[in-house]
Amino acid sequence: MNYSFANRVNTLQPSVIREILKYSSVPGMISFAAGNPAPEAFPADEIAAISAKIYAERPIDALQYSVTEGYNPLREAIRERYSFLFGENDQVIITSGAQQVMELTTKSLCNEGDVIICEAPTFIGSLNAFRSYNTKLVGIPMENDGMDLNALEDALKNNANVRFIYCIPNFQNPSGIVTSLEKRIGIYALAKKYDVMILEDNPYGDTRWEGEEIPSIKSMDTDCRVIYAGTFSKVVSPGMRVGYGIAPAPVIAKMTVCKQVSDVHTGIYNQMIVHQFMTGDTYDAHLAHIKEVYRKKSSLMTSLIDIELAPRISYIKPSGGLFIWCTLPEQIDMLSFCKEAVNRKVAVVPGSAFLVNESDPCSCIRLNFSTPTDEQIEQGMKVLGELLSEY
Amino acid sequence: MNYSFANRVNTLQPSVIREILKYSSVPGMISFAAGNPAPEAFPADEIAAISAKIYAERPIDALQYSVTEGYNPLREAIRERYSFLFGENDQVIITSGAQQVMELTTKSLCNEGDVIICEAPTFIGSLNAFRSYNTKLVGIPMENDGMDLNALEDALKNNANVRFIYCIPNFQNPSGIVTSLEKRIGIYALAKKYDVMILEDNPYGDTRWEGEEIPSIKSMDTDCRVIYAGTFSKVVSPGMRVGYGIAPAPVIAKMTVCKQVSDVHTGIYNQMIVHQFMTGDTYDAHLAHIKEVYRKKSSLMTSLIDIELAPRISYIKPSGGLFIWCTLPEQIDMLSFCKEAVNRKVAVVPGSAFLVNESDPCSCIRLNFSTPTDEQIEQGMKVLGELLSEY
Repeated sequence: MNYSFANRVNTLQPSVIREILKYSSVPGMISFAAGNPAPEAFPADEIAAISAKIYAERPIDALQYSVTEGYNPLREAIRERYSFLFGENDQVIITSGAQQVMELTTKSLCNEGDVIICEAPTFIGSLNAFRSYNTKLVGIPMENDGMDLNALEDALKNNANVRFIYCIPNFQNPSGIVTSLEKRIGIYALAKKYDVMILEDNPYGDTRWEGEEIPSIKSMDTDCRVIYAGTFSKVVSPGMRVGYGIAPAPVIAKMTVCKQVSDVHTGIYNQMIVHQFMTGDTYDAHLAHIKEVYRKKSSLMTSLIDIELAPRISYIKPSGGLFIWCTLPEQIDMLSFCKEAVNRKVAVVPGSAFLVNESDPCSCIRLNFSTPTDEQIEQGMKVLGELLSEY
Repeated sequence: MNYSFANRVNTLQPSVIREILKYSSVPGMISFAAGNPAPEAFPADEIAAISAKIYAERPIDALQYSVTEGYNPLREAIRERYSFLFGENDQVIITSGAQQVMELTTKSLCNEGDVIICEAPTFIGSLNAFRSYNTKLVGIPMENDGMDLNALEDALKNNANVRFIYCIPNFQNPSGIVTSLEKRIGIYALAKKYDVMILEDNPYGDTRWEGEEIPSIKSMDTDCRVIYAGTFSKVVSPGMRVGYGIAPAPVIAKMTVCKQVSDVHTGIYNQMIVHQFMTGDTYDAHLAHIKEVYRKKSSLMTSLIDIELAPRISYIKPSGGLFIWCTLPEQIDMLSFCKEAVNRKVAVVPGSAFLVNESDPCSCIRLNFSTPTDEQIEQGMKVLGELLSEY
């Protein structure tokens, strides 16, 4: 038979990154394209021990159906650890990764054609979640300290039916930019002025290895307009698929109903593991360990960029997150550079993948330093250096 | 601030069953309202052993990101075990429970206002998934051997934009009805005649403890119009959230993109556990064991219905599944019976919860025999018998 699909998904494509990642399995390919935590960052022994304990003591609890809102002890542990994110009327829902917060938020809040304002560039997984409900996306150019607030206000003024502003204030994916306190306050003030919500996505906040933490927008949320997305993917395990949303009670209630029809609940064993680990004695030491892993890897990659690619290629030095965002010289065609890099067995992500409109001009590429080994970083940067020198 | 929600979810309510289940935690409440597997049906020791092996041998694989389509060895094991379900052009996607197949199918195929034809009554989780995309639902009355095919053809004739027929041919939830081979052939023929798809949901097929298996509609699918939903929730563990969809390649491709923006992938550890267990030496013995558990529990409950409730209450004797569907005498108000049962600390589900239109007349209740202990079944049936005698 001939298949026809819903309008909302007709033009939806698999993520460009996932397509590029297919190259990763080509023998000899060095991938700077993924966003996977480093293998040495996983608390594998701790999780194995917790797992054995759970199966020994409470196997049925770990295997039986559970409630949609999430495992209560985990919800309470999140509320305790991140109490500064909770307003009086806020609640928390456990999700199957932070990605599900984006989907549940969009499904709950947006009719087709409604507008979502996002940073440009931004995380492709969120863009595709928004697109999958036929929303209209408006991208706001990023400055070194976050969104251009004038452009943001123009977008709020000129678009009817804006439902929310999507932002990743810490170590933004892909740009690595940290939004300044001043701009966080400014974004919140504009959301208030135009009465729209904010979806604040913070997958990398707990990876900061340098500098002072900047208060999250959610922590300033005096009138309950911020939905916050958190995750254990970067600090415990992405394969577990445990994330969470914090939002005003009526929004959490609607997200809960949407989650109930999607996957009923997040794997309960997975939630129990995360709960035990994050409330255990070793969690803070583990966080310190992964920060050190990422600091070292990031530092190795940036020092090699300085040797092999700078000053023709410029970049923002990260103090958290998993990515380095590099700007190529204007005369180089970015897409052809990426293709040629893959030909030489180094996979990078073309920056255009992160734009609202992929055909907009873009001279950036995203490099990931967490997945490759140190040897692969050294070898891959050499290849990129040689490639650059040929332009 | 004031919150407004998307039209699609504005009228969506939490499942009635979940609301009733809240009573289950009231001390002394006997719940016949759930759909949980019996605790003694869980292969807890086997899973604990497999888990230890996975963490000992391949911890990083179990913790790292994986692919959206699902863990390949599990996909292949499903293809092997259920080869009779696969046409030449069919593929399999691993989902976070079978519930996600319903959601991904609806999201991929249905524009708002499109029509889904379903059995009446049918599974409330699916109804709510369909409703959450603002589809129009048309219910087809059930006869003892499946949908009324004349009513089905009328519905196909009289509704524009029917996208698919949803059915649960084995031990239907809630009615317990098994659709006959003749009707399965008839449903497929009608789907072909009116060129619509079929969503065949089979959560209970592997629990059959008596009688001959009847070929699934998917196994007759010569022109690739059936989407099949399977799950390990009833035979391994619901808390793991591992299900699967089998469908023509273009449909699986679209569902994969939708899943990518929803939860990226199903927990990889969970998939590895299910794969190891379902391909292990003990799986068939385990299936035989749970069939015996359910046969005994079902038989205990039906024998007590015969003593305490029959012949005023009639029911269909199950040979699989988890539920018994009971019809009350006409002069009894079904909802008041359910409320009074809860007052006496026995929770049952009012049959109207499973209707397309909950306010349609209904004199049925659903009893679950898998969750309560034998003692609870005995005690609870006595309470229901006393209650009935007062009417």
